[in-house]
Amino acid sequence: MALPKSINHLSDLLSSLPGVGPKLSNRLALFLAVQGKGLANELSNSLTEVIQNIKQCEICGNISLETVCDICSDTTRDKTKVIVVEDALDLESINSTGEYNGLFHVLGGVISPVNGIGPEDLSIEKLLNRVEELGVTEIIFALNPNIEGDATSLYIKNELENRFPEVKTTRLAKGIPVGGDLEFMSSQTLQDSLKSRVDF
Amino acid sequence: MALPKSINHLSDLLSSLPGVGPKLSNRLALFLAVQGKGLANELSNSLTEVIQNIKQCEICGNISLETVCDICSDTTRDKTKVIVVEDALDLESINSTGEYNGLFHVLGGVISPVNGIGPEDLSIEKLLNRVEELGVTEIIFALNPNIEGDATSLYIKNELENRFPEVKTTRLAKGIPVGGDLEFMSSQTLQDSLKSRVDF
Repeated sequence: MALPKSINHLSDLLSSLPGVGPKLSNRLALFLAVQGKGLANELSNSLTEVIQNIKQCEICGNISLETVCDICSDTTRDKTKVIVVEDALDLESINSTGEYNGLFHVLGGVISPVNGIGPEDLSIEKLLNRVEELGVTEIIFALNPNIEGDATSLYIKNELENRFPEVKTTRLAKGIPVGGDLEFMSSQTLQDSLKSRVDF
Repeated sequence: MALPKSINHLSDLLSSLPGVGPKLSNRLALFLAVQGKGLANELSNSLTEVIQNIKQCEICGNISLETVCDICSDTTRDKTKVIVVEDALDLESINSTGEYNGLFHVLGGVISPVNGIGPEDLSIEKLLNRVEELGVTEIIFALNPNIEGDATSLYIKNELENRFPEVKTTRLAKGIPVGGDLEFMSSQTLQDSLKSRVDF
């Protein structure tokens, strides 16, 4: 006897989710099939609801219940600043700090040759069009500070400089996170935080 | 703006799965809502199928498409030996070795006061009834070798000795796993493997 087909199928689907490996997906499929039938039912309904209700904002790419998201339709926001993020979770993290009242642009990923993602797969052209339409004066890059994030920022920065040399480009400060421990920081992080040191 | 309610709900449901924390559940919910709509749809269907098709064997507690599982209905199996496991995944792991031709009994968990799971929550009474009905001569404990697993084995062993003193009880050997590295083994594992050393 092997596991029933329908459980293997469920496990296969779960293992194609980001961050879920084959061991966890097996355990989840079995849990949902035995102890978690109520939860499985709720999950199935919730998935259907999300599929039906969630759209992507046609302007910035944020998730939204309408064709245009709350942020893009908020007329009180500063339309001269745009923060570029990888996905809607990063957008939400920054927006919920309450420190920023400008607009956002969701790329939908980062350039990653390993995963076959090139610039044409990201919503970069849309960003350039928005810069022109809105009269943006500053683009703030808020991609994750790793090789792919940095390369993507650099690529977009070059495109911007070619077409809109007057637009200022900035990126989030790199340094030691609040509550961090110096001895556990990478040498690159320490170098960055030293280079970007500020007056005290 | 916060994340849409339906995404938060999906994330909450996902985070109640074993092994899925709040960070991963957020990421999964967003992934399913944006890039993974096709996968979300397949998942929803697969969950419905599993809810409808998967039963628990009414004899041993294994997962099954019928009311009695393939193993319990297999007349060629040795009915005098029963391996006690925590869940159907453990059963499948042992059964797929092909080394064992007896029966199984799925407890559905282990005794865990921290999680409020007592002996009455596990299918122990059912196991004792099966011992009587089948004329079992050996119960083999195959629970995970940790405090909770060992305590559960011990509890059942005592119950068995009270009611069926003639039934032999054994447990899986503890020792160094094949391919393991001595220097990374816990002192408890080394002690166990030394105590249980075999003729060479």
